[in-house]
Amino acid sequence: MRYCFGIDIGGTTVKMGLFEESGKLLDKWTIQTVTENQGEAILPDIAKSVSEKREEYGIAADEVIGLGVGVPAAVCEGRYVEDTTNLGWGYKEVKRELEEMTGFAVKVENDANLAALGEMWKGVGREYKDAVMVTLGTGVGGGIIIDGKILSGVKGGAGEIGEIIVDYEMQEDGKRVPRNLEYYASATGIKRLTGNQYSAKQVFEQAKMGDQKAIAVLERFGFYLGTSLTNLAVTLAPEAFIIGGGVSKAGDLLLHYVNKYYHAGDTKVVLASLGNDAGIYGAAKLILK
Amino acid sequence: MRYCFGIDIGGTTVKMGLFEESGKLLDKWTIQTVTENQGEAILPDIAKSVSEKREEYGIAADEVIGLGVGVPAAVCEGRYVEDTTNLGWGYKEVKRELEEMTGFAVKVENDANLAALGEMWKGVGREYKDAVMVTLGTGVGGGIIIDGKILSGVKGGAGEIGEIIVDYEMQEDGKRVPRNLEYYASATGIKRLTGNQYSAKQVFEQAKMGDQKAIAVLERFGFYLGTSLTNLAVTLAPEAFIIGGGVSKAGDLLLHYVNKYYHAGDTKVVLASLGNDAGIYGAAKLILK
Repeated sequence: MRYCFGIDIGGTTVKMGLFEESGKLLDKWTIQTVTENQGEAILPDIAKSVSEKREEYGIAADEVIGLGVGVPAAVCEGRYVEDTTNLGWGYKEVKRELEEMTGFAVKVENDANLAALGEMWKGVGREYKDAVMVTLGTGVGGGIIIDGKILSGVKGGAGEIGEIIVDYEMQEDGKRVPRNLEYYASATGIKRLTGNQYSAKQVFEQAKMGDQKAIAVLERFGFYLGTSLTNLAVTLAPEAFIIGGGVSKAGDLLLHYVNKYYHAGDTKVVLASLGNDAGIYGAAKLILK
Repeated sequence: MRYCFGIDIGGTTVKMGLFEESGKLLDKWTIQTVTENQGEAILPDIAKSVSEKREEYGIAADEVIGLGVGVPAAVCEGRYVEDTTNLGWGYKEVKRELEEMTGFAVKVENDANLAALGEMWKGVGREYKDAVMVTLGTGVGGGIIIDGKILSGVKGGAGEIGEIIVDYEMQEDGKRVPRNLEYYASATGIKRLTGNQYSAKQVFEQAKMGDQKAIAVLERFGFYLGTSLTNLAVTLAPEAFIIGGGVSKAGDLLLHYVNKYYHAGDTKVVLASLGNDAGIYGAAKLILK
């Protein structure tokens, strides 16, 4: 039997999964992300946890195919990151360092790209080859899968859906300030549209009860997200858009507001199904493909 | 020696090229596009022209690898189109019909996608694997090349860059009307912004001489095109944007106005180099790959 590890490094915790070669998830757990001292402990902590889990399951070194690793940053050439504020890292050769610490083959990718890959492999995207995942959380991230593979782009810059400029705000001095999708469609953005009074979750609850202010906020949310998905559809024409992240827990009500402003019938809009596990599945798939 | 034909069907003429297997263009010519009677003569005329050219060069049937064909419409599954107003066609199984008429293998693609593929193969995109071509002509078209291959998308719908919504016009009744990139960045669009007084070519000439009205029109052109390319860069992060089509003849002055509003340093913006031949090169590459 051979195994791999799927590892998803976040700003607070590192999610880890032990997979059989068949793709079956055997075990999952989390360790703390220690960001102090430029995050110097993060990779050693991961190496130690891999080692402990191997001991627990009695897995020999030559039974490990490799480690897939997701990081919250643009990943260059599948090897290094130039800057990862969330983790305390500056430039870091994640692949080389973790390979030296563990002795195993390591592949590194952006975490949103891996969530997309995970949903395509074991989640709602199973029946598709081409899809775009949009992650609505504190920020707005994205991952583009074409022909079953992640589109990384130059310097890992592809899939930054949250940075798409969707509108301009005219300032008093006549200057036009660009506003991006993240400004309107993230949990933070929805909250801001309520004057920071209510969380995104509360806004969806209030709208369900007929609150007109909450409905107005969600109309704007749906307008900008629906228009952006329409623009992505004429550009990429994927089989599906997969909506994930914390905000996607609003479910059908979210789809209601998005579909109102979404006009691209040949591409479906569906909700993600793996939740927080999408990242470790995608990381494992990097190794098992 | 083996050969292929690269064929680019337009609304007025069909451009045709005879290529050696090495990729060398041996001969190019055009025939008229006869759109009468639902364009029923178009494919037979092409078959006849292929046959005549083979005779001229003494090329035996078994020396022909195949025919690559570009059409001004979305191409489904590399086989058929659902509607091609420009040619008079409704639903048409281009691949099957032309294979039956000629006895050769036929591959069919959207013409803008083939222009992109042609530029990547023999034009300004030679050094790239990932690029997005934007064709600024009567309309605005596009073609996306990823890892050297055309991204076709569901029902051939990918690359419709001209349909990207870039702004909204507020109407007197308070309704917001979406405006797409084609509305501002096509030759037709630039002309409209002058009250239909001047052609796109004239506007660039006037701007060069310092005409303030012409400069204002090109600022808007540059703003919408530059912003759209920025949004495509955060989405796809290609190595380059290739600007082609009639409007691109404005050259450096066009790049000046686009670059003013383009903010994505890792992706270059370059001018196409094959002109009207890009389509036949791309069509040949479909066969020779």
